[in-house]
Amino acid sequence: MQTLKSEAASAIDRLANAQNIVVVCHFDPDGDAIGSLLGLGLALRAMGKAVVLACDDPVPWNLTFLPGSDTVVQALPPGAFDLAVVVDSSDTRRVGRVGAEAMARGAPVINIDHHVTNTRFGQVNVVDPDAASASEIVYNLLRAMGHALDADTATCLLTGMVTDTRGFRTANVNQRVLRTAADLMDAGAPLATITQLALDRRSFSALAMMGRALDKVRFEDGVIWSAMDLDEIRALDTNGTGARPRNISSLLNAVDGASVAVFFAEKPDGAVDISMRAKPGFDLTALYDEGQALHQQGGGHPLASGAEVNAPLATVVPQVVDALKALVREQSQARETAADLSR
Amino acid sequence: MQTLKSEAASAIDRLANAQNIVVVCHFDPDGDAIGSLLGLGLALRAMGKAVVLACDDPVPWNLTFLPGSDTVVQALPPGAFDLAVVVDSSDTRRVGRVGAEAMARGAPVINIDHHVTNTRFGQVNVVDPDAASASEIVYNLLRAMGHALDADTATCLLTGMVTDTRGFRTANVNQRVLRTAADLMDAGAPLATITQLALDRRSFSALAMMGRALDKVRFEDGVIWSAMDLDEIRALDTNGTGARPRNISSLLNAVDGASVAVFFAEKPDGAVDISMRAKPGFDLTALYDEGQALHQQGGGHPLASGAEVNAPLATVVPQVVDALKALVREQSQARETAADLSR
Repeated sequence: MQTLKSEAASAIDRLANAQNIVVVCHFDPDGDAIGSLLGLGLALRAMGKAVVLACDDPVPWNLTFLPGSDTVVQALPPGAFDLAVVVDSSDTRRVGRVGAEAMARGAPVINIDHHVTNTRFGQVNVVDPDAASASEIVYNLLRAMGHALDADTATCLLTGMVTDTRGFRTANVNQRVLRTAADLMDAGAPLATITQLALDRRSFSALAMMGRALDKVRFEDGVIWSAMDLDEIRALDTNGTGARPRNISSLLNAVDGASVAVFFAEKPDGAVDISMRAKPGFDLTALYDEGQALHQQGGGHPLASGAEVNAPLATVVPQVVDALKALVREQSQARETAADLSR
Repeated sequence: MQTLKSEAASAIDRLANAQNIVVVCHFDPDGDAIGSLLGLGLALRAMGKAVVLACDDPVPWNLTFLPGSDTVVQALPPGAFDLAVVVDSSDTRRVGRVGAEAMARGAPVINIDHHVTNTRFGQVNVVDPDAASASEIVYNLLRAMGHALDADTATCLLTGMVTDTRGFRTANVNQRVLRTAADLMDAGAPLATITQLALDRRSFSALAMMGRALDKVRFEDGVIWSAMDLDEIRALDTNGTGARPRNISSLLNAVDGASVAVFFAEKPDGAVDISMRAKPGFDLTALYDEGQALHQQGGGHPLASGAEVNAPLATVVPQVVDALKALVREQSQARETAADLSR
């Protein structure tokens, strides 16, 4: 495996020499996927290159304010490319149909990502798990290329940084992230506008759904939870911009004294979407161990995890809440025992 | 009036030479009041000075994690001081009882603030309305004094910056704010922990109150609002840590398409607390003009304003909502007319 520095040098060399480039991000794109896609795309266009920007799904409503977002296509035009670049995607499954086609037609592939789980599927892999966003890596590459960012490019990259760190909140935000954000403001990116439009803006139905979920919230033995059935969701979410379950579980997890938070949402097919968050020190992935409540039904990270269960909401809620109460009890005891032993 | 630079030089000179200093912040203190109070106090103590830190009210529960917060007193010890410093307070009324006594016993007074409405009540006035927080001004003074900040001091000052900008969200966050925050992280301030503990953490009753308020939310003609009577508030807020009305109106104002947001809360004395927020381009202070709905009943800024009305909730809500609908209509028309004229 090459070092990050030599991979970055190789990426810069290939980007500088290619003339006809396709850039793709993952399906169901978030702010960092679109921000890094557009930031790289606008900069390469400013260098005079022909650039196709593609994603399986359209740009989400909260990101359509970004310059260049109207140039993102869901299907590639015919023809070959000199180079394919994949941003913010940990593996080849995440890039979807359009990504598979881009990689097939545009070898070599440059893989630019910050996920620790990245499979290094490119010919060149600029993968930096210490970066808080893919947009930050794109910024570093462009700066190393000597490219002077314009305000549009800076706006896209700062949007990626702001959204992936939930407004500079995540544990991976270090001094470098703040100084890079300041540099992007120097280049003309409007931070307050970006935060309002891309991160804080909500549809009325999303707010109403949040209200219904919070009004029914329960809190016992370190576990905080709420649930909504399909009728409630359909009554409130009139235009498909409703609150995402993961936003609600994050809000619940902020409560003082809660060790884990979970939100249950009934889906149109009758399955239950389960979004879970935990405070540092707990590990939700224990739920997926053999013999545990959600074995083979979900995945994710210790502090942020999701599952989908094919069973009625009224059955799933008490079962998972009980499993989480047991998890909190056991992991709290384990922490206390470890503290005892270290004395 | 002296320039900011010469006032800062004078403040540095007096801080360096005083040995027995009292520092006060305003009553009902927020994160910037406590952050700048403690940041300055810890630094002066590190310089070997005797420092009394005082505030009319105790340190709020979300800020008691700050180093030195257990040394903030609500009454001054007997004796005289060489110097009094007042932080984050726009006038002498805001400093309360303890502030009045500190200023009486500790002339000269250094007034360190960032509010544009500051009355410059000190012998020295380090008032910088371009600063996003008083903590930022304290940082600049300490750096100009050549003081090497320790992690505790940096933590207090970063807490002030993070809370007063709602996590780097307000329109006054510029490149300098982000670079100062990065410098404070260099000195050991843990950004993610600060944001979680001081800004995002909520009591369970605050979350439940938010849920009740949002579940009853209404949205008509650009105005979004909710209201709670005293019985509802008492039923949910079991320990006095409930949601502040201003937090709820800020949340409502984030809704896409809302021009102004208002939350009404009935108070124990029967009056109605009205918290209002507006999107940029609107001016809530027009409500306080002669002949208008809230004349002489409130105050504040164009985008964030509050009032208190001695009338039943059922009367106040429709009256103020109607006044806000008229305000949105008139100010939207005024903006369109201005746009026409500029063509």
